[in-house]
Amino acid sequence: MTIKISIDCMGGDHGPAVTIPAALAFLKREPDAELILVGQEELVRAELKKHHAGDNPRLTVRHASDVVAMDDPIEVALRRKKDSSMRVAIELVKDGSADVCVSAGNTGALMAISRYVLKTMADVDRPAICSILPNQKGGPTYMLDLGANVDCEPHHLHQFAIMGAVLFEAMEHRRPSIGLLNVGTEEIKGNEVVKATAPLLRADHERGVLNFHGNVEGNDIFKGTVDVVVCDGFVGNVTLKAIEGLSRFVKSVFLETTMSKIGALFARKSLKKLNPESYNGAGLLGLKGLVFKSHGGANAYAYEWALRRAFDAAKYNVQAQLSTLIAEMLPQAPNPEAPGSTIQQG
Amino acid sequence: MTIKISIDCMGGDHGPAVTIPAALAFLKREPDAELILVGQEELVRAELKKHHAGDNPRLTVRHASDVVAMDDPIEVALRRKKDSSMRVAIELVKDGSADVCVSAGNTGALMAISRYVLKTMADVDRPAICSILPNQKGGPTYMLDLGANVDCEPHHLHQFAIMGAVLFEAMEHRRPSIGLLNVGTEEIKGNEVVKATAPLLRADHERGVLNFHGNVEGNDIFKGTVDVVVCDGFVGNVTLKAIEGLSRFVKSVFLETTMSKIGALFARKSLKKLNPESYNGAGLLGLKGLVFKSHGGANAYAYEWALRRAFDAAKYNVQAQLSTLIAEMLPQAPNPEAPGSTIQQG
Repeated sequence: MTIKISIDCMGGDHGPAVTIPAALAFLKREPDAELILVGQEELVRAELKKHHAGDNPRLTVRHASDVVAMDDPIEVALRRKKDSSMRVAIELVKDGSADVCVSAGNTGALMAISRYVLKTMADVDRPAICSILPNQKGGPTYMLDLGANVDCEPHHLHQFAIMGAVLFEAMEHRRPSIGLLNVGTEEIKGNEVVKATAPLLRADHERGVLNFHGNVEGNDIFKGTVDVVVCDGFVGNVTLKAIEGLSRFVKSVFLETTMSKIGALFARKSLKKLNPESYNGAGLLGLKGLVFKSHGGANAYAYEWALRRAFDAAKYNVQAQLSTLIAEMLPQAPNPEAPGSTIQQG
Repeated sequence: MTIKISIDCMGGDHGPAVTIPAALAFLKREPDAELILVGQEELVRAELKKHHAGDNPRLTVRHASDVVAMDDPIEVALRRKKDSSMRVAIELVKDGSADVCVSAGNTGALMAISRYVLKTMADVDRPAICSILPNQKGGPTYMLDLGANVDCEPHHLHQFAIMGAVLFEAMEHRRPSIGLLNVGTEEIKGNEVVKATAPLLRADHERGVLNFHGNVEGNDIFKGTVDVVVCDGFVGNVTLKAIEGLSRFVKSVFLETTMSKIGALFARKSLKKLNPESYNGAGLLGLKGLVFKSHGGANAYAYEWALRRAFDAAKYNVQAQLSTLIAEMLPQAPNPEAPGSTIQQG
């Protein structure tokens, strides 16, 4: 089965210099992939030429005149750049020309444009961003929301849990355990929102819909205590960025002296386990179409991982599974597009 | 000037096996320190004997019959263990026998007993826990609150900022910059509480009371963008534990193979920069008395660092500075011990 991916080639800190070589490498690796490169045609073609890319029936270029800058306010990206590579790439998903879209652009703009173009799924109040992190057990830990929703109600966290579970099962081919991120494992712990969320997840567990483990703490993310960690977008965003900051700190320490560089060389095989690059690619869930987000600072190797995840999500039909399962799992859907959604600011 | 420290010898995962050797090492290092070892006398004396500790006029043992277990509910620790080593150590601060208390026990119990015994300072609504983390600039990043208050209002975060600033200035001898932890640096970003906090800090900045940098993101904690990072106890606790989890993951990766162990050996000098052990020791701020918290799992080396920090805080008179400066900095103090404080559950 062919999977078509639309790529926002201009997105991210490095634009075509990263997205194009990544796309070419992925195309080589994955014979079932078809790629639509969206961006300023001249720049895209120049980069393709640089990499000696010949004509390929599985590779097309789609011109888009605008570029959403990494620091563009959401309003500007949404209202004033209607022919941005980001928007066009998403529109290709909307009109069925692509199965999934990948962008390394501004997260807020990507979520806002995705919501505007694709719309939110029936039964879902708010889309969420689900990242994948490595854990000590050697498996992935899925974590959501990572920044789309900074003020959440219990029923939002409940929906995140369901969407995360569906994504995990589709991508990893087994039923995940779900943990609610909290300051302690005891049920009495937590802030008001989290305390009110646990009973919703517990009820799902009892009716056999979710495998709810209970509360988990920050260190459980890396322990691999559960497969899917659920939190609001404020906590998720801050935690993810703190983790990234620490990773960069560790990396800088290894580059400090000759001795430490030698040390890193010796340990490099083990260190690969930690490689955040291979965990690039976060899913925007709850939209009427699949969108994946790459880290803005990703290099070509990391970006290729985002393409792989997007490909897998489309291949395993995450979108259809989300539609079916969310409708089944959620007995009733409270106010879609409820007020208090802070996607415009998050 | 002699500084008297009361030590909850039974607290932490390892009790006297860690606290006693740490106390003895610290006593040797710091001629101006006097230590009161609080705990089950027989166990404490046995451990002292094991380390061949002779009589020392700067070392006394104070018997306490109960022990607060790491998993004791706060109610049990507070109401049923009135002669616990934790409580007696705090009472020694209350009655002036000690300048500061150090415990590696259960954080919730320590905060609850400290509040009960010492009481909250006038002008402070809620005490907070302030940790110290390493950053890429080679300096410390102070971060609070780290778990005492899971549901916060803007005026709580405002007070945390002031308390963190006072602690930093007393311990580091320079005026700190303050950052408000958020999902982005722009003022329009964040959840409702954070958005309402920024103007309070901005106003303080304008009247010259605080050096408010603005919003910071999770990665700024390790970048060293600001000296003091302010957040609510939910976000702080989750972030800190995620950081600890990642650190443990990295450590485990280095212990995996012979090659990675050799790598760690080569890099060990640089890796010391990251050593979380030397950043052990978090201050409980906003109480009518100084209490420091060691990590529960601390080894003797790390515990000694908590003793050092407690010693410095007492030596530089943090408590008196907090009283004076908070009164000066806060024009008015809203409802002390306000409802909504979740310290009993946090």
